[in-house]
Amino acid sequence: MPAVPVADGAGPSPAVSDDGAGRAPDRCSNRAPLRFADRLVGALLEAGADEEQAAWTAWTVVYFVLGLVQEEQAAPDRPDDRLTRAVDPAAHPAPHRVAAHSRPGAFEDRPAFGLDAILSRLPE
Amino acid sequence: MPAVPVADGAGPSPAVSDDGAGRAPDRCSNRAPLRFADRLVGALLEAGADEEQAAWTAWTVVYFVLGLVQEEQAAPDRPDDRLTRAVDPAAHPAPHRVAAHSRPGAFEDRPAFGLDAILSRLPE
Repeated sequence: MPAVPVADGAGPSPAVSDDGAGRAPDRCSNRAPLRFADRLVGALLEAGADEEQAAWTAWTVVYFVLGLVQEEQAAPDRPDDRLTRAVDPAAHPAPHRVAAHSRPGAFEDRPAFGLDAILSRLPE
Repeated sequence: MPAVPVADGAGPSPAVSDDGAGRAPDRCSNRAPLRFADRLVGALLEAGADEEQAAWTAWTVVYFVLGLVQEEQAAPDRPDDRLTRAVDPAAHPAPHRVAAHSRPGAFEDRPAFGLDAILSRLPE
């Protein structure tokens, strides 16, 4: 996977400092998502993506990350074997075969796995 | 991208027929998602993924598709230029540059784009 530099052309983030005019920091306004989009899309363009690839890759990344974060936030605090019990080895042979990797968890490794895949189509 | 065959080893889907015992078809029960998971994970295994790659790729595909479907279902019926107006070319140069590809739409092409990327890491 090519390195994806994080663009820093937008200057210091106002998300961590008040703008001095008494307005709320950027994280409390609609400008924060646009500044984040500028960093993400800018990094993809710097990595060599064309405009369509940068825009569509950004959405692919966002949807993947949102889904995984929702799963992590909803993960039970205690072991939950409902999925394991629901999988019938005869009726669902594939889920049964991969069951060890289907439980909630690996929340450090799975984002890297998905992002590596999504970003692997960027120019070398 | 390698071809991803759709596994058909689970026989005819009970989602389209009653099981004869008076129970609701599979699409109305918790078994339908497991049967779908069996087809998706089975296809990834048939394509050469190992167990971890099959499980984690399946989740990556599901989160991407759910996000895109939610966007499509929420897309306004009439042109909506709020995003275009919110993007400041000076403050958000990257979103401004890719604006033509960031509007809701291309719902035929973007799923293929994202799936091609996600599945490109499968064995050749």
